[in-house]
Amino acid sequence: MKNIPVVLMGCGGVGRQLLQHIVTCRSLHANQGIRLRVVGVCDSKSLVVAPDVFSMELSDNLLLEVCRVKLDSSSSLLTLNGECQVYSNPELTKKIIDIAALLGKSTGLALVDCSASSETIGVLNRVVDIGCCAVLANKKPLTCKMEDYDKLVSHPRFIRHESTVGAGLPVIATINRLLSSGDPVHRIIGSLSGTLGYVMSEVEDGKPFSQVVKSAKSLGYTEPDPRDDLSGMDVARKALILARLLGQRLNLDSIKIESLYPGEMGPGVMSVEEFLGGGVSLLDKDFQERVHKASSKGNVLRYVCVIEGSRCEVGIQELPKDSALGRLKGSDNVLEVYSRCYPEQPLVIQGAGAGNDTTATGVLADILDLQDLFP
Amino acid sequence: MKNIPVVLMGCGGVGRQLLQHIVTCRSLHANQGIRLRVVGVCDSKSLVVAPDVFSMELSDNLLLEVCRVKLDSSSSLLTLNGECQVYSNPELTKKIIDIAALLGKSTGLALVDCSASSETIGVLNRVVDIGCCAVLANKKPLTCKMEDYDKLVSHPRFIRHESTVGAGLPVIATINRLLSSGDPVHRIIGSLSGTLGYVMSEVEDGKPFSQVVKSAKSLGYTEPDPRDDLSGMDVARKALILARLLGQRLNLDSIKIESLYPGEMGPGVMSVEEFLGGGVSLLDKDFQERVHKASSKGNVLRYVCVIEGSRCEVGIQELPKDSALGRLKGSDNVLEVYSRCYPEQPLVIQGAGAGNDTTATGVLADILDLQDLFP
Repeated sequence: MKNIPVVLMGCGGVGRQLLQHIVTCRSLHANQGIRLRVVGVCDSKSLVVAPDVFSMELSDNLLLEVCRVKLDSSSSLLTLNGECQVYSNPELTKKIIDIAALLGKSTGLALVDCSASSETIGVLNRVVDIGCCAVLANKKPLTCKMEDYDKLVSHPRFIRHESTVGAGLPVIATINRLLSSGDPVHRIIGSLSGTLGYVMSEVEDGKPFSQVVKSAKSLGYTEPDPRDDLSGMDVARKALILARLLGQRLNLDSIKIESLYPGEMGPGVMSVEEFLGGGVSLLDKDFQERVHKASSKGNVLRYVCVIEGSRCEVGIQELPKDSALGRLKGSDNVLEVYSRCYPEQPLVIQGAGAGNDTTATGVLADILDLQDLFP
Repeated sequence: MKNIPVVLMGCGGVGRQLLQHIVTCRSLHANQGIRLRVVGVCDSKSLVVAPDVFSMELSDNLLLEVCRVKLDSSSSLLTLNGECQVYSNPELTKKIIDIAALLGKSTGLALVDCSASSETIGVLNRVVDIGCCAVLANKKPLTCKMEDYDKLVSHPRFIRHESTVGAGLPVIATINRLLSSGDPVHRIIGSLSGTLGYVMSEVEDGKPFSQVVKSAKSLGYTEPDPRDDLSGMDVARKALILARLLGQRLNLDSIKIESLYPGEMGPGVMSVEEFLGGGVSLLDKDFQERVHKASSKGNVLRYVCVIEGSRCEVGIQELPKDSALGRLKGSDNVLEVYSRCYPEQPLVIQGAGAGNDTTATGVLADILDLQDLFP
């Protein structure tokens, strides 16, 4: 039985779902000859560790207890009972690096980042440097400054981050396959936000932008402040991850990002209530005109990322109605990849690109995909 | 520099293209810290081997010479000049097994099957049993009887066969990712023949079946005898590979296969000329009626494989015009995968599913994907 020690950072929706999947898949993985041995779990404040990381693990009961405790996001892991050591914040990072140093050269370690923090890049880089593996659902360490990114991916086989783009959709794996086999990817265009995909296809059907934004919020498709989605920043992070995969050396601040609201309606200027109550409806007319203009040419508007040559842009594009992107309805993600092997008709990947279950499933597949690196 | 010894079986279109890609990608792979060391190449009649498989390799010049010689499919590897040993048929299999036994326990070996032979299952199973890796573009070893299949996939991490379904499209890798992470795939439906995809979408546009078959042949989309495509047997092999991946235990002869021509027009009864000259046009009326009937319900006809529960079928299905399969035009492959994470809206993979370049690129990606198993 191959033993993969795991330390999880982040117990929000995705992290909790991952722990549940690990427990649920015990017998499936045993049939594959694999045991995922979770030796540590942390949130932003505290770290819970098995008493002996070489031979012990956090029990399935404890992992499920973590899930229950963290259902309330204000709860702390410090309240946990069970046979484990608990470290709080100043020691937390040091302790994870200690575990990596202990396990790195013998059994190996998979450090899994399901947080949404930009602070984890430091510990990730230290752990990768020691020779451990890293699996990320967190986009921020991959969209940090180029120098830190280079360190993070310095051993490309030791890092997986499928769930940072398109959740569980096989986006990163597919692009990596093409690149490794010498098929140069020359263009990627994708709709990588379920929220903005929904907004653009509803607007296309003639509904006012403001009404669509409000429905999206009430359906739970948006962040509590919908401007977090409408700013395009989340899509820009995904675009940057793809652009860097293709070898572009650029930072987040050099990506051209089109925001779907003007600066004078930003979070620093008006509250969410003011934005939804009044501001956003001022944008309806302009949207309607753009939709009509595109439609008169047989096109539709989509909020996409375009990566091509040294170009990396995020914003609204007019696209043919009968392309994979143009046909997109609802909240699915779609990615079109053009390469030597797919020159005119792209390789297309489509499906749900969000959701804790789908994202956590992608993380779990990534961990298992690293198995050949473990003794 | 990691060294991956490779023996290639089959120097037809895909095999030749693979050798060319390997030579072309030398510096790319060197940057990744990888050297693909081709120690042997064989066709059905002869095997060319490096003088010392531990330390030597067939030179790039020799590999390109193999490509040139085999451009004429009747030419033999026996005509090659260069520093190599040549074995002819009765010794050929034994020699490959000897190489695997020599390299298996030390450096490892990737045995690559780009042939179209059903005879390679024996040597593949012996080589896998020794602990070597196998990469297949050849569908036949995976669609042999269940007992041999079980042996072939007994070490699942040591075998890759992405290019057996959808050429370079990430079909097998994606399904394996879902399965390994405990996301049960409950339904797959796909159009996995570029030829039949083309035929069905042209027939939908009102062209007579016989005319479409003749155009497909003249465009080079079909085998020399188009009935090889129209029989559905190639799609059935792909369906069987997917069904077995999902755990179905069945053989080729238990798959329900709809042939697009009746038995009385089969190759044993009439020649290709008779079929194209007269026989096939007798099928036009029936096709036209089926297309109209589907169209009147807002549906289109597609030649698909359906894998669901214990069901594995290959044939014409009526599908909604606005589904990923219904929208398919031309010779692209499309696969819809339904699972817990993709319950209503499937995960869709679409793109060119044939061609030597695309297929060989998929094989090369598979070889590189095995790299962590090599010392």
